[in-house]
Amino acid sequence: MEDVIREIDSAFDAGVESLLSFLSIPSVSGDPAMAGEVGRAARWLADYIAAAGLQAKVEATGGHPVVTANARGPEGAPTLLVYGHYDVQPAVVGDGWTFEPFSPRLADGAIKGRGASDDKGQLFCHVLAAAAFMRARGSVPVNLKMIFEGEEEVGSMNLEPFIAARREELAADAVVVSDTSRAADGRPALTVGLRGLLCLEVRVGGANRDLHSGSFGGAVANPANGLAKIIAGLTDPEGRVTAEGFYDRVRAPSDKERASWALLKHDEEALARSLGVDALGGEKGFTALERMWARPTFDVNGITAGYQGEGPKTVIPREAGAKLSFRLVPDQYPEEAARSVEEKIRSLCPPGLKISVSIQHKASPVLTGDRGTASAAAVRALRETWGMEPAMIREGGSIPVVESLARLLGAPVVLMGLGRPDDGAHGPDERFHLEDLRRGTEAAARFFENMGKT
Amino acid sequence: MEDVIREIDSAFDAGVESLLSFLSIPSVSGDPAMAGEVGRAARWLADYIAAAGLQAKVEATGGHPVVTANARGPEGAPTLLVYGHYDVQPAVVGDGWTFEPFSPRLADGAIKGRGASDDKGQLFCHVLAAAAFMRARGSVPVNLKMIFEGEEEVGSMNLEPFIAARREELAADAVVVSDTSRAADGRPALTVGLRGLLCLEVRVGGANRDLHSGSFGGAVANPANGLAKIIAGLTDPEGRVTAEGFYDRVRAPSDKERASWALLKHDEEALARSLGVDALGGEKGFTALERMWARPTFDVNGITAGYQGEGPKTVIPREAGAKLSFRLVPDQYPEEAARSVEEKIRSLCPPGLKISVSIQHKASPVLTGDRGTASAAAVRALRETWGMEPAMIREGGSIPVVESLARLLGAPVVLMGLGRPDDGAHGPDERFHLEDLRRGTEAAARFFENMGKT
Repeated sequence: MEDVIREIDSAFDAGVESLLSFLSIPSVSGDPAMAGEVGRAARWLADYIAAAGLQAKVEATGGHPVVTANARGPEGAPTLLVYGHYDVQPAVVGDGWTFEPFSPRLADGAIKGRGASDDKGQLFCHVLAAAAFMRARGSVPVNLKMIFEGEEEVGSMNLEPFIAARREELAADAVVVSDTSRAADGRPALTVGLRGLLCLEVRVGGANRDLHSGSFGGAVANPANGLAKIIAGLTDPEGRVTAEGFYDRVRAPSDKERASWALLKHDEEALARSLGVDALGGEKGFTALERMWARPTFDVNGITAGYQGEGPKTVIPREAGAKLSFRLVPDQYPEEAARSVEEKIRSLCPPGLKISVSIQHKASPVLTGDRGTASAAAVRALRETWGMEPAMIREGGSIPVVESLARLLGAPVVLMGLGRPDDGAHGPDERFHLEDLRRGTEAAARFFENMGKT
Repeated sequence: MEDVIREIDSAFDAGVESLLSFLSIPSVSGDPAMAGEVGRAARWLADYIAAAGLQAKVEATGGHPVVTANARGPEGAPTLLVYGHYDVQPAVVGDGWTFEPFSPRLADGAIKGRGASDDKGQLFCHVLAAAAFMRARGSVPVNLKMIFEGEEEVGSMNLEPFIAARREELAADAVVVSDTSRAADGRPALTVGLRGLLCLEVRVGGANRDLHSGSFGGAVANPANGLAKIIAGLTDPEGRVTAEGFYDRVRAPSDKERASWALLKHDEEALARSLGVDALGGEKGFTALERMWARPTFDVNGITAGYQGEGPKTVIPREAGAKLSFRLVPDQYPEEAARSVEEKIRSLCPPGLKISVSIQHKASPVLTGDRGTASAAAVRALRETWGMEPAMIREGGSIPVVESLARLLGAPVVLMGLGRPDDGAHGPDERFHLEDLRRGTEAAARFFENMGKT
């Protein structure tokens, strides 16, 4: 690998300059006014990859385009698909940035700008790694495919049909995604689990009009009181969800995962301090890390009813509504959880009230584990690059595309986060440390190499 | 009384015309743009009363003016204070009126227009009764005082200081208020009880910012979940408020009241139908009438937290708030109930959350009963006028001024409603039946006469 590492180092400064150019394109997928810029970023990325010697093209979808690329590896080599996204979250100086978010800069040993870590910088590690192989050897050690979408920050609506229509073309033995983070202490990490999600909206209806709480109070069921009873009834005093069979399929983390988590020395007091709370909350009998990574949850995301202005108003509202979400963990099925939760909600509705429940979003939990060939190749690459044993971590959130990729392509997905949890993704002054760009590129290259040898 | 009744009849048509003029003045106290009209209505009323031969004047307050009037009765006669309000609720055609609300008219045997029943028409019965006495006899049979305010519909903020500053001048042996209704079946009624009120706002705080429910869900207490637990915990499965000692002072209705209520044959199914609900709600073990009139309640008047737009958003809101109200009944003390409720709310707040509770409004319940001299005089007047036994009813709402009058003047308050519950007070096409204006005037006159004989 010395030849490739040498190429990575010699081209590093030029790579940094190129990433700064990439970051200067405001490819904000959520802002219709920026559609042209999103397209420009796709074009820029495809051109850059093509200049490195890969086949690359910009492909249209029902929304923002997808950049695909490929390079043939040795005969009989496995096929690896790199997934990333070149679109970014909105960012304006008013959000707390100390500089214009799309005028990226080098400071404090980091590249700063919107998308630096999420996900332009991280996907760039794979691009730079491929480029280094091309320069050093004229080829890559795997059959390399890349897919970079422009709608990750707005729900990847067009990615599934795109992949489904190109199953042959995108077929791979493994998929690698660098869109998560390393461990909180900076150690390299393989993310081996993601939580799933079930979002629903509940509306509770009472009388056919708002009522005067003096004239009618006591005689008629109040939808807001009823909704509170429903929400309260969805968890028991231990903080566990009361829906029938909700925990039946919940898989306990493996001993290996638990051992890895113990090494992380997660500081619950520091977390509470950073959130400004006296005490953390949640289900009894589990650590905060377990609760965030390996336990399902129930959160009210929004609730509304009746009078919300200043002062009192003695009204019995005609309707009350809430947005509820449940994080799911392996091996819960969203469909099954939805049925059970909906049944429980209906059973909790007090008499005299009407209820409607609508499922708004479902995402499966993902447990990639660290057992497969691709995971082993990634773990080795991380160990070789950082000189220490990678942690096995999870993320509490969902990355729906991970489940889609695994399902549609029938391939294992490796989540190799290269940035840091405090890179400021989605926040102001987002950054990607130069050291992480350098090591991330090396880790990607070593991963390609390790995969090629499997 | 024949002389007075004759005068009432002979002046009836002229009285109707005058009331139409009174109703045509849009004295909407809640609309700053109408302040001039409110003042004009006060002036009109004082002039009318003066023309009838009473002393009358318009007196300034910190807000809209008060009209006061008086007429000396026989030496040693008791003193009666008539309270009413000449301000009205807002009304525009767009609210569902079939005509311009301040262009009053005669139709279907009723005077129609905003304020027809609440309260211009009802207070006018007392004015017409006094006028009839003056014409028939040159004097009234009691020492008669009147106070008509212009801020009842906006909370009577300036009435207490006004009364407090004129205790001597307004001193009376009894106060009569015609601002409630007769029984639902049209029978005359004495309203002998009003509920009190306790309004408070609860705010529950969590982390120092909105959090991503994926990253943090399960580790941190959610203020909206917590608020739902608090609200749900404030009532037990029987629908009873769980605050310590909340029911200790609740007085059961007397046997006489219960007997009177049984005669009303309140139709719970008809109530449910009119509200569009399958079943009524509320505390177990009581009739709807008991629940509305003689039992305390707990209602959520408003609740808000987090995301309220379309679709899902996986946020853990940093704060959740609710407006809560408790109707109180005799002999509950608002202060005591407030302390107990606040203590219970604080005890229900889950760990990891901050809570603030602010009391926004308190009103004492009122139980006038039908025992005193003034009540007996009113019951007799109603019986003589309508030729049937008056019902003893209550109202579920609060009329704070009733408690203020009783407390500041140390006099019993008689609630002699002269209109009907379906007169459309606060609603479109408000009306006062001509028959009710006629009988209401007679009842007021007979009440003066009966009081004079005590």
